[in-house]
Amino acid sequence: LFLGTAAGGGVPQWNCNCPVCQAARRGDGRVRPRTQSCVAVSADGRRWFLLNASPDLRAQLERAPALHPPAGRPRGSPIEAVLLTNADLDHTLGLFLLREGERLAAHATREIRQSLAQGLALEATLGAFCGLDWVDPPNRPAPLRCRDGSPSGLFYEALDLGGRPPRFAKQPGAANGHSLGYRLSDEATGGRFLFLPGMSSLEGPAGACLSECEALAFDGTFWTDNEMPERGVGNLTAAAMGHVPISGPQGSLNVLAGLKVRHKIYVHINNTNPALFEDSPERAAVTAAGCTVAADGMELVI
Amino acid sequence: LFLGTAAGGGVPQWNCNCPVCQAARRGDGRVRPRTQSCVAVSADGRRWFLLNASPDLRAQLERAPALHPPAGRPRGSPIEAVLLTNADLDHTLGLFLLREGERLAAHATREIRQSLAQGLALEATLGAFCGLDWVDPPNRPAPLRCRDGSPSGLFYEALDLGGRPPRFAKQPGAANGHSLGYRLSDEATGGRFLFLPGMSSLEGPAGACLSECEALAFDGTFWTDNEMPERGVGNLTAAAMGHVPISGPQGSLNVLAGLKVRHKIYVHINNTNPALFEDSPERAAVTAAGCTVAADGMELVI
Repeated sequence: LFLGTAAGGGVPQWNCNCPVCQAARRGDGRVRPRTQSCVAVSADGRRWFLLNASPDLRAQLERAPALHPPAGRPRGSPIEAVLLTNADLDHTLGLFLLREGERLAAHATREIRQSLAQGLALEATLGAFCGLDWVDPPNRPAPLRCRDGSPSGLFYEALDLGGRPPRFAKQPGAANGHSLGYRLSDEATGGRFLFLPGMSSLEGPAGACLSECEALAFDGTFWTDNEMPERGVGNLTAAAMGHVPISGPQGSLNVLAGLKVRHKIYVHINNTNPALFEDSPERAAVTAAGCTVAADGMELVI
Repeated sequence: LFLGTAAGGGVPQWNCNCPVCQAARRGDGRVRPRTQSCVAVSADGRRWFLLNASPDLRAQLERAPALHPPAGRPRGSPIEAVLLTNADLDHTLGLFLLREGERLAAHATREIRQSLAQGLALEATLGAFCGLDWVDPPNRPAPLRCRDGSPSGLFYEALDLGGRPPRFAKQPGAANGHSLGYRLSDEATGGRFLFLPGMSSLEGPAGACLSECEALAFDGTFWTDNEMPERGVGNLTAAAMGHVPISGPQGSLNVLAGLKVRHKIYVHINNTNPALFEDSPERAAVTAAGCTVAADGMELVI
């Protein structure tokens, strides 16, 4: 369940006048508004796991009846845990929004936890509310467990994507453990979902196993490497922000086009990305390659 | 402009099954959904100041055309600064959502800043994005200035309400500076707006000057002192959370009913508060006292 499909800032972004944001505000159907990236997965439709915790989580949960509190108790939630791909604010601020609930379980590497301790005092502050338990994500398939320790019917493994800590973290630059992908599989059906919302490179082990899944959710942040500077809305290139662009000879679309994967989906799409226009040549190119640009509310059964 | 009118968690709250939240989810008109407390004020309709920064700020700004980025620049915002009443997460998480903008100005006491440094590493983390300038709010009327130093057409003063630091802060309990009210006045019309979303007591200097305004926005968090324990959704009383309840002989409604103030408005309303039911006796009592229960999108011209 794709709760949110935009990169940081969402579509439209509060302070942005780029053509995409303007169109999203006009509401003429050319650009659908999107909240910030977050996916919910479940084997049984009853117990759910969040992939990242979007700043828009409150609105996202409200729009998803499957994630409403179950009947019969004054308070409660079908959310069993959050799996973090990195410490970026657009993936982690939503953890604070879960503070009114039961003790929270979050899966992340030591490096991601350290960034969140430095940049948000996360564990200490949640400790004054629900409390937070960290879980080390495994690097080979292992059962994904619910709060009570019972198996969820899903297996999962984390793929280390290399990359850098977020810019607010006071840590040495390139190192392992700062950026993850996840592959989840359904114990009953064997269906696999590969979640890679932030990929700095198509090389490496994660790039080599892109086709080993039935559904791939891939980094769709930028169309070109210098999209932000070109639109006058930032100085950083896609590469500097840890994202491989969709287009170009080194872009992801060339690779995804050749993959024999049933569902090939771009997620974490920045508001500057022209593929957000439903009627754009960029969108047509994505579709021609057998890929989809994700939209909020999209549901996938594997 | 009342961008958000609920207390922390909003209405409905993601994990809450109380009668108010259930009704808000059903959408049968008995309870209007509400986002978390935030008010925007302006003298000229062009330059705006936020009173607190709600976690729901992204959605709130999108729903308010007056707060959209002005035309003619790739990025920009009519938001000149944020005035904080305390360090509570439901008043401050929205500051992170403004990180993509220009350098941010936030008005708060030293005590509030210290809580935010401890509980959110706020200044350091925003320093890696837009940067943050703190402004000391004055304790007598002074011009409220825009980012460029020009007068906004508004005067403002902070009222120290005593109170405690938020529970995530590692600071000694009761002391001054942790909780503020603001009185804003329009330089041209003289119209005054008194903003008191968190009042632990009707005694004291702020309680004594409630009628010195044309519009009063007052703490409407709880109807009774033991509302949370009674509904089985928490252990803390209103008093323990720093809120004077609306009802009862010591409640705020008795006092507000007698005030000669044109607009008497309850804000920061918790999802457990029965006055959120449009057809409840509690709502009828509020109305009979000449008061209003605020709703998102409400606009007031003083």
